[in-house]
Amino acid sequence: MSSIEQRIDELRSDDKSGASELTQRSVAVLKELAESFEGDDKGEFIHYVSKWGSTLAGLHPHMSAIRCCIGGIVYGLNEHREYADVFGLRHFVYTFADDFIRDSNDNVKKIARNACEIIGDNKYKVLLTHSRSSTVREVFRQLIKIGYSVEFIVTESRGRVTRPGEETSYPFGLQTSEDLKSMGIVHKVVPDILAGHYARKTDASIVGADSILGDGGLVNSAGTYHIALAAHDANKPFYVACETLKFDPSYNQSNADILLETLNKRDVGKGHLFDITPSRYINDGRIITEIGALKQSEIADIMTTKRKYLTAL
Amino acid sequence: MSSIEQRIDELRSDDKSGASELTQRSVAVLKELAESFEGDDKGEFIHYVSKWGSTLAGLHPHMSAIRCCIGGIVYGLNEHREYADVFGLRHFVYTFADDFIRDSNDNVKKIARNACEIIGDNKYKVLLTHSRSSTVREVFRQLIKIGYSVEFIVTESRGRVTRPGEETSYPFGLQTSEDLKSMGIVHKVVPDILAGHYARKTDASIVGADSILGDGGLVNSAGTYHIALAAHDANKPFYVACETLKFDPSYNQSNADILLETLNKRDVGKGHLFDITPSRYINDGRIITEIGALKQSEIADIMTTKRKYLTAL
Repeated sequence: MSSIEQRIDELRSDDKSGASELTQRSVAVLKELAESFEGDDKGEFIHYVSKWGSTLAGLHPHMSAIRCCIGGIVYGLNEHREYADVFGLRHFVYTFADDFIRDSNDNVKKIARNACEIIGDNKYKVLLTHSRSSTVREVFRQLIKIGYSVEFIVTESRGRVTRPGEETSYPFGLQTSEDLKSMGIVHKVVPDILAGHYARKTDASIVGADSILGDGGLVNSAGTYHIALAAHDANKPFYVACETLKFDPSYNQSNADILLETLNKRDVGKGHLFDITPSRYINDGRIITEIGALKQSEIADIMTTKRKYLTAL
Repeated sequence: MSSIEQRIDELRSDDKSGASELTQRSVAVLKELAESFEGDDKGEFIHYVSKWGSTLAGLHPHMSAIRCCIGGIVYGLNEHREYADVFGLRHFVYTFADDFIRDSNDNVKKIARNACEIIGDNKYKVLLTHSRSSTVREVFRQLIKIGYSVEFIVTESRGRVTRPGEETSYPFGLQTSEDLKSMGIVHKVVPDILAGHYARKTDASIVGADSILGDGGLVNSAGTYHIALAAHDANKPFYVACETLKFDPSYNQSNADILLETLNKRDVGKGHLFDITPSRYINDGRIITEIGALKQSEIADIMTTKRKYLTAL
């Protein structure tokens, strides 16, 4: 068990990895725990998985992705309870975990393919993005790969006030610029105060997501809201691309301030700040995910399922 | 005349002073030129004033304030032509110049008084501003003076992308912070990417103006547009306070891109960038000036007069 405890400690202290990776690793740990369970009492097995699941979900309480996913396992165990023994239930955990981890690794590529289908059709010449998103980077990579000739604009995305003489932190937009350089992608970096100005002039804007709220609103790196407002004002499309993993029914526009405050306190040292963009400023209210560009009713369905998962834990 | 030429050279190379000061100094030079005119031919006098007026207006071609004001003098001379001799016309130039300079010095105080009447009534607890404006500073000073207890938020207003290791320029918001400190005014500086977020939460936002377009739109330090959009989105008032001197009928939303490009190229070294905010995002479309909070029809009337002045030159 000591290796499990060590991995839990590592998970707890990891403040670098994203929700997707942390969820994958949490699920992998839960799978090992299920393996180590001894006995043949179904109730005890479910209780054991559920108790450890709560511990794992509590390591990063603001990342509802972990809680939803583990909650999904516990929900499934309760659903299978009548028809399976411990062997069957353990098998369910294995399958769920393996499927989840395998799918997760493909999701970014799938999202990018879905994004390319939409963006690739529209013949945009200039695309704007903000902050840093591995999903958006993959979209750009695939666009280039399918022979798309496009210019990119990246906002500096500076997360803190920097006084003269102070060490400048490395803003996320500049990190994206480095990524794009290494991919040989032509782009320019613009100051954050011109984000809206450029979002007006650009053919379309695309960003990733920290999470999608229950009502379809977007939590993402601060400054996203400016871009969405300006794109909307100029009648230009504003796209959001992310895994359904990021869908978080525990918050919506009306109580998201609590979430925002937590996030902005957590990451203030890293210069990572967040803001909220209401769903009405997102292109048709759709989110581009690994299972397609989901419309509002589809987003609502997923949220309903996730709410069930969250309460299972 | 050599002192005149020297002052013209000084005016030409002055890239620090604002439109108000440069207009005052241009008008003072024109007054001296009118004084130095020899002869008693009215036509020659008007031609002389007009020719030098064009030279002065051409020193800062993007500052239509100078052209409008000097155009106003030439327009007045042509109006008085029938009824006055060179002595009378010269007197007209003197009076116009002296009145203009005297009024200009009071304008900022008058604007602030007019702003206080509006803002002071509404019992705002938190006010947000952007960039640096001596007019807004005077508003803050007068609000404090009339016993108003208010908290201020200033956006960093960083005008250029700053890479790690690069010398950071001194953003205008930090300059405003220094101003407020020296005035003993409590405030906080927030990153530009949170401007919209704070504009939502703040009771009201107020900014100065680089110029007001013919259709009532606002040209101001870049980032203003974000604040106006967010304030509008959250149904919070967004105020603009400036002298009518800044009203510029030569541009409107449809051709303002040319103006913007010129401004952004001119001041890129100083980290001073501009953007445009459509009139519909300004509180009731009103501009707070030295002669009151002007509504759209009043703005349109002033623009019509200014158009006459501009074509007189």
